[in-house]
Amino acid sequence: MTAPLRCSLSHPAALERVPRWDYEADVIVLGFGAAGACAALEAARCGARVLIVESAAGSGGTSALSGGEIYLGGSGGTPIQRAAGFEDATEDLYQYLLMVGGPNADAAKARLYAEHSLRHFEWLNAQGIEYKNSYIAERCIEPATDDCLIWSGSEEAWPFVQRARPAPRGHCPKFLGMGGGRYVMDKLAQQVAAAGVRVLFNARATALIADGGRDVHGLVLRLDGEPRFARAARAVVLCAGGFVMNREMVKQHAPLLLRSQFPLGTVDDGSGILLGASVGGVMVNMSEGFATIPWYPPGSLVKGIFVNGQGQRFINEDCYHGRVSNYILRQPGERIWLLEDHATYATGEMQQLAKIEIGAAGETWEEIERELRLPEGSLSQTVRLYNQYAAQGTDPLFHKAGKWLKPLDEPPFVALDCRLDYCFYASFTLGGLDTLPSGEVLDAERNVIAGLFAAGRTACGLPRWGEGYSSGLSLADATFFGRQAGTRAARTTR
Amino acid sequence: MTAPLRCSLSHPAALERVPRWDYEADVIVLGFGAAGACAALEAARCGARVLIVESAAGSGGTSALSGGEIYLGGSGGTPIQRAAGFEDATEDLYQYLLMVGGPNADAAKARLYAEHSLRHFEWLNAQGIEYKNSYIAERCIEPATDDCLIWSGSEEAWPFVQRARPAPRGHCPKFLGMGGGRYVMDKLAQQVAAAGVRVLFNARATALIADGGRDVHGLVLRLDGEPRFARAARAVVLCAGGFVMNREMVKQHAPLLLRSQFPLGTVDDGSGILLGASVGGVMVNMSEGFATIPWYPPGSLVKGIFVNGQGQRFINEDCYHGRVSNYILRQPGERIWLLEDHATYATGEMQQLAKIEIGAAGETWEEIERELRLPEGSLSQTVRLYNQYAAQGTDPLFHKAGKWLKPLDEPPFVALDCRLDYCFYASFTLGGLDTLPSGEVLDAERNVIAGLFAAGRTACGLPRWGEGYSSGLSLADATFFGRQAGTRAARTTR
Repeated sequence: MTAPLRCSLSHPAALERVPRWDYEADVIVLGFGAAGACAALEAARCGARVLIVESAAGSGGTSALSGGEIYLGGSGGTPIQRAAGFEDATEDLYQYLLMVGGPNADAAKARLYAEHSLRHFEWLNAQGIEYKNSYIAERCIEPATDDCLIWSGSEEAWPFVQRARPAPRGHCPKFLGMGGGRYVMDKLAQQVAAAGVRVLFNARATALIADGGRDVHGLVLRLDGEPRFARAARAVVLCAGGFVMNREMVKQHAPLLLRSQFPLGTVDDGSGILLGASVGGVMVNMSEGFATIPWYPPGSLVKGIFVNGQGQRFINEDCYHGRVSNYILRQPGERIWLLEDHATYATGEMQQLAKIEIGAAGETWEEIERELRLPEGSLSQTVRLYNQYAAQGTDPLFHKAGKWLKPLDEPPFVALDCRLDYCFYASFTLGGLDTLPSGEVLDAERNVIAGLFAAGRTACGLPRWGEGYSSGLSLADATFFGRQAGTRAARTTR
Repeated sequence: MTAPLRCSLSHPAALERVPRWDYEADVIVLGFGAAGACAALEAARCGARVLIVESAAGSGGTSALSGGEIYLGGSGGTPIQRAAGFEDATEDLYQYLLMVGGPNADAAKARLYAEHSLRHFEWLNAQGIEYKNSYIAERCIEPATDDCLIWSGSEEAWPFVQRARPAPRGHCPKFLGMGGGRYVMDKLAQQVAAAGVRVLFNARATALIADGGRDVHGLVLRLDGEPRFARAARAVVLCAGGFVMNREMVKQHAPLLLRSQFPLGTVDDGSGILLGASVGGVMVNMSEGFATIPWYPPGSLVKGIFVNGQGQRFINEDCYHGRVSNYILRQPGERIWLLEDHATYATGEMQQLAKIEIGAAGETWEEIERELRLPEGSLSQTVRLYNQYAAQGTDPLFHKAGKWLKPLDEPPFVALDCRLDYCFYASFTLGGLDTLPSGEVLDAERNVIAGLFAAGRTACGLPRWGEGYSSGLSLADATFFGRQAGTRAARTTR
């Protein structure tokens, strides 16, 4: 029998016209990445019958592609922060998260996360995710070792440092090499199996099932080429990732991200967001995304300066690489360089990930300027002014911290070519469904949609502003708010 | 009897539960601004029974607050363009409109408008809107006279001029003084009355009426404190303006616009957009808005330069004031100045509208720099470099056209304070429902929603990108695509 229903990702199937129920559960979770795994786990532990529906052949989603790093702190610090000498206050974490969220930060989520982050760390431990008690003080993007604690954001950089006492909060799992996300997902998947959660792999959601176009009662799936009807007695939790792989949606909502050629995603086709919108869920911050050129280590490169096609600086280079890249995206013109001198460039090889090449080299900045075909006096004047103040240990224009200030005056000089169409820029989306901290999906007037939750990048969570993103925030948000959604979904009564 | 229905702006009333029909029409148009008037007119002229529902006590909406200027051209030029010596090619208008639309411009709408703009001018004439055959070559924002043709965008400025042959396209109605929008609306309202359109004033839409949560069949209204049910046999056309007066929605979707303290709107509470979203209509470009400090005339001010809080230039000052302001919104920090010398500032008074005051004055740029507490060498170096090239008649960094280039070297000098929290910055929203050129509202997968149309700022039309906005585009879009929507709505069959 073929589906008798008119329905699609953007149009829910009418409850009264569902021909049969092929599956029944209390809570149906769409997506088996970090958010989905955590939602399923907590729902099952609340006594709910849980079904995970996953379009891939196994668990992991985009979470498994990540480094597995999770942004944690507050409450005096995690044991690893404390061992490294950081007493991380809840209020500092909260203030930092507000800055992360930007002009429409979700204060309620930031507050809840700041207050419960330490307990969330303990919960992650309890799922079998191990952390080595170690701290890397040097700038890194993701440790190639199994070390844990790193600086993963703009905590020490202006203007963040003015509002919140800095602490390193990136917690990487005890996993040797890059790619700890798979390790984290394996641990969560083991727990999911142990909790008796049923999983349907290779099953694609094609529509929500709703009563009156609004109250959610289940999902229409496609499995083995056939439609299947799955009933959720309590709620559906959408944890199907963002939309970075749906290039039409990116063009429609976040066209600036098209400038990055390396979308970070697995499925991330926006289907979770579309399903939520089909019953009135409102999409927010859809134009925002994480985009980055991972240009350090070595940390000495931070002593260099970024200039745009006008030869102007535009940011304090000591902030998080994603923030720098977000500024790069918004510079007029296409050309961006990182200027270094012999001392700052020669101290180490650039991390291979970065794929940044030399655009010009010379014995004077005027020579570099000519080689880059910049107007005479533009770049050279910028460097001269920077050097003059750096020699005095200040950066009055962009507020780079003193420890990164050094005149770029030791030839030979280089201009590293950081053009968007030339370098490795990675991206993912930060816009999604508006939700309460409980994961309940909201309509445009902020009314709760009955029977529907969302978490992870299907929702718009703590990270929602490209200029504020810090590594480990997406997984922190996905795991923590996935848990909230699972718990609340299991307790939903109709 | 009170409303027995569960419904809201974000939740349609179920068709089968509507208790009675208080009003019936073929086409119901929500909003009696320019888009609504044009939609109603064309629908009535196609033979449909039309009902306009307007929340105010009279016609006009935000269109009546405008200058009445409409962006027109192409097809060899309007008679007024041709009389002024401009043969405006359709392809040039089309290319310009693509740039106006930015990274996700709607090419289909741009094409349709470019090809039919001349005929639209004739249609406007036929509604009784008169245009004087006159052209103002000098920079102005809105003529205080009854003159017609003005430069109202960035046509002559880089980078626009590189892609489309420039022509003035702002057509102001023959109305003495500012505020021609009321004149335009009066003419349209006379036609609406003559066409036999029924109008309900003081009637607020509270929900759509939909079948299966999706196909639109009417509106729930509130009139005299009571719910009323209005049936649309063919379609509902949403022409209820944007959302700039709904500050919660602005915070949620376009937080940058909160920096402008002068929202340009009447109702513009987002209700039209919310109604469309309630049946699956997708909102696009919600973060974009028009924001402007109307800082010229006199045109000589264009010879000055804008600098940010780092003392850097950031734009070619000869582009449209709204584009400049959009760049201002995105500058780091709060401080922005317009630098002028005796020759460029003393030639005329600033237009009173602008409310820009002097932040610093002095005999040297170094003095200005100190007075503004900018780091020594920052602003003064910027001016020195600008002057050096201006003396040669070039602006290699920002490409201001030659006729505006003059070294700022005649003391006394001034820095006009253009801070966002200090000056008159006006704004309105450019995000709205995604629609086809016909006005049909689309869901997130770009499927048409049956029985629903939108136009004007309730839809996302030609103007959808703050950096590209030009005066007259919003009314051009509202009137032209309002007409398309009315025509198609009248011909809709279920």
